[in-house]
Amino acid sequence: AQFLLKTVKEFWPPSSVVISTWPPFLPQEWLTEDFLNSLRAIVGAPNVSTATVVREQHGQDESMHRNCPPDAVAWPRTVEQVSLLAATCYSRGVPVIPFGTGTGLEGGVTAVQGGVCVNMMKMDQISELNPEDFTVAVEAGVTRKTLNKYLRESGLWFPVDPGADASLCGMVATAASGTNAVRYGTMRQNVLNLQVVLPDGRVLHTAGQSRRPRKSAAGYHLTGLFVGSEGTLGFITQATLRLHGIPEATVAAICAFPNIQAAVDSTVQVLQAGLPIARIEFLDEVMMSACNRYSGLSYAELPTLFLEFHGTQQSVEEQVGATEVIVQSNGGSDFAWAREPEARGRLWAARHNAWYAALALRPGKKGYSTDVCVPLSCLPEVLLETKKDLLDSNLTGPLVGHVGDGNFHCLLILDPEDAEEKERVADFAKRLGRRALAVGGTCTGEHGIGLGKRQLLREEVGEVALSTMRQIKMALDPKNLMNPGKVL
Amino acid sequence: AQFLLKTVKEFWPPSSVVISTWPPFLPQEWLTEDFLNSLRAIVGAPNVSTATVVREQHGQDESMHRNCPPDAVAWPRTVEQVSLLAATCYSRGVPVIPFGTGTGLEGGVTAVQGGVCVNMMKMDQISELNPEDFTVAVEAGVTRKTLNKYLRESGLWFPVDPGADASLCGMVATAASGTNAVRYGTMRQNVLNLQVVLPDGRVLHTAGQSRRPRKSAAGYHLTGLFVGSEGTLGFITQATLRLHGIPEATVAAICAFPNIQAAVDSTVQVLQAGLPIARIEFLDEVMMSACNRYSGLSYAELPTLFLEFHGTQQSVEEQVGATEVIVQSNGGSDFAWAREPEARGRLWAARHNAWYAALALRPGKKGYSTDVCVPLSCLPEVLLETKKDLLDSNLTGPLVGHVGDGNFHCLLILDPEDAEEKERVADFAKRLGRRALAVGGTCTGEHGIGLGKRQLLREEVGEVALSTMRQIKMALDPKNLMNPGKVL
Repeated sequence: AQFLLKTVKEFWPPSSVVISTWPPFLPQEWLTEDFLNSLRAIVGAPNVSTATVVREQHGQDESMHRNCPPDAVAWPRTVEQVSLLAATCYSRGVPVIPFGTGTGLEGGVTAVQGGVCVNMMKMDQISELNPEDFTVAVEAGVTRKTLNKYLRESGLWFPVDPGADASLCGMVATAASGTNAVRYGTMRQNVLNLQVVLPDGRVLHTAGQSRRPRKSAAGYHLTGLFVGSEGTLGFITQATLRLHGIPEATVAAICAFPNIQAAVDSTVQVLQAGLPIARIEFLDEVMMSACNRYSGLSYAELPTLFLEFHGTQQSVEEQVGATEVIVQSNGGSDFAWAREPEARGRLWAARHNAWYAALALRPGKKGYSTDVCVPLSCLPEVLLETKKDLLDSNLTGPLVGHVGDGNFHCLLILDPEDAEEKERVADFAKRLGRRALAVGGTCTGEHGIGLGKRQLLREEVGEVALSTMRQIKMALDPKNLMNPGKVL
Repeated sequence: AQFLLKTVKEFWPPSSVVISTWPPFLPQEWLTEDFLNSLRAIVGAPNVSTATVVREQHGQDESMHRNCPPDAVAWPRTVEQVSLLAATCYSRGVPVIPFGTGTGLEGGVTAVQGGVCVNMMKMDQISELNPEDFTVAVEAGVTRKTLNKYLRESGLWFPVDPGADASLCGMVATAASGTNAVRYGTMRQNVLNLQVVLPDGRVLHTAGQSRRPRKSAAGYHLTGLFVGSEGTLGFITQATLRLHGIPEATVAAICAFPNIQAAVDSTVQVLQAGLPIARIEFLDEVMMSACNRYSGLSYAELPTLFLEFHGTQQSVEEQVGATEVIVQSNGGSDFAWAREPEARGRLWAARHNAWYAALALRPGKKGYSTDVCVPLSCLPEVLLETKKDLLDSNLTGPLVGHVGDGNFHCLLILDPEDAEEKERVADFAKRLGRRALAVGGTCTGEHGIGLGKRQLLREEVGEVALSTMRQIKMALDPKNLMNPGKVL
């Protein structure tokens, strides 16, 4: 998810996708002046809004899911305020929806049952930086770029990078990952502790208050349960994160391949050789062509890998050398290596602009991103079948992927006014999800289930896992007030 | 946990430790011939035993917790048999306890409420090895050494190494780690999917049947919930594991330091430099002295680090060079580097024999291992206070630690016949646990909570986390039949 979708404000999903909890938007009986006054008493009157424009801003993320505005929006500044908001809503049976940067891609913040949206962005404190322990604590509104700016002098950084400048606690909520995950892991591997406000307002520390050991075997792994819970189990108000040393040297590279198989084979061999590659991104020939046109470049319009190596000067050179051997043995060519920051920036620009380049293929249209993740050995077959399906479906959809993790996105460009095309895209996305499931993969590597993939989740994990998830949801949120209608 | 405790069969904990669920061992009303016949019908008559010696073999692990034999032991061969055993016991309200190699260190398998022990070791199939995807599936009885032998030709290995040749699913159950965790992570980072038989007999696939993507954001992270669940939420019948490439080169090293601070500072600096060190183990001067005496060695009797580097020939040499600079700047000396397997084996022998060397300090006595894990920056202070406490308490307890993770063990040597000494050890262990909690650490880095650390768990995570864990336990095991009396 290396792109932004700020301008997408379309009705989604198309009518063929049945969302059982979709309600007509009616005034809620609990929505009284008395109730709003109780919210104002907690966060202050200026921090509660029922203005239509504000509610609509909070009724969607960057996906094409239909805008479902909450009934009110509140901006707490402290965990105590979140706790009081939660308790107040809990006692009155009012749904609550945590909201961060709104950069999600699966409709996770849409208020499908109305309720109070709790915008977490005013909780913006960074604390407990312990450089020797590689740990820091961030409140819910701190974004990853803000954190990395804060860390700059420390020689440390937080590597998980989903593209958007998302809030880190929002990234916890969706189990985000992105381009660096092949080396540094996803959010799952980089969260040590969470402060969570439970639906009834109690404050939970998943690993105990102020704890930050690098590992623990103490009781059930609540931290892991809340990573990826998509706002359905509680408000994530603070995260204690694992940091990493900024590498001494970074080298970026780009390399073209005769076919997809050769690019994926190179990836597998790089990983099998134990090379600690930091990024390995795949773009198909359609995407490369779009990038060339969009950015005035002249890269070969072939399946291409963008690579990045982190380490000491010497180890990076060794990684580069070893990768070159692997890549050449697979017919890779048209190398470009970039060592200095500016050169690296130019080289990666094509990848970073992929989304806009894709949109430029059909000016004035909108984009929708799929998110399957499959075992590496199945990736060539899934990519090829997907490309054939695109052709058969008469759809435009360049492919970009975090190929080291087997995760790729098909950037579908569609006309939101064209109901028939929207149906075709939805059908294609479902087929792609099922194609991933058929080879042991997942329908979502990093975007989450949200609203639109609940049927695929059922097919993916099966009835027993789904009912186990439901039991956990019921145990922690018995009134089903935390972001209802999502995931399950 | 780099040692075995095979000979420890003592009453533990001493009387000062109150275990509320401790029952007198009485015949259970459900224990009828009819019930035993129903077990025999599932797994075959030879695979059910009520013999005293068999029950006692299954009534304890390698810790000093009191032997609490189950009422019967059953050996299933298939997940279907586990499912039927679970359903049968569930319908009659009979407690069930999963049993692997019995190498746990916290009394996790003791049948404190009686019931049926399910010995998983006959489920020994290894399947679905996918070298390109770095994944393999192992049934509950496969040990880590068996798996690594199986993998030898593939160029891959499974690095998590708690010392004992434990079953991999047992290692899942306790969230095991050990010496390689600083580089390769603990079990938490190396499990992709689990097949679990729930208390009522339903079969759950935590990530969906046969799924093995490297990452996923699909629904609640059930895999993470079962890692470290210590047999209290279900039977782990199969695990899909993440494998790693066998490194091209391995170099081992040992280095002595003038004091603990210098050894820990070196560790922090090695990690901060981003050196991908595979092992970094600490032994204090008492432990080194014991090792010298036990193995006829002549290492300096000073705080010492044992190190291991994995990578290509070139990168390993670079890591070694960079580490040497760091270590020397902290006053480290008496280097010994070993490159060949035999030399490495000799060098690591001292570390591997640490437990026996510690026991040899007081021949004929028994050992008990603590397991705290603290933030690295607090490690010197905690180590020094712990050494002072040992002196003040008049206890023998050499220190060994997975120092890269902030996890260390105090190997207490005690006379099991000496009630007063046992009390002193128990008090010391509690103080050490609380010392770790006071600096933001955990009472258990890798051994788990089991029976003896439930009070410390409460202090560690707090009432809200504990009640959340209880809610999850009640949701998944409403009759409290899965390994009752453990963790919570």
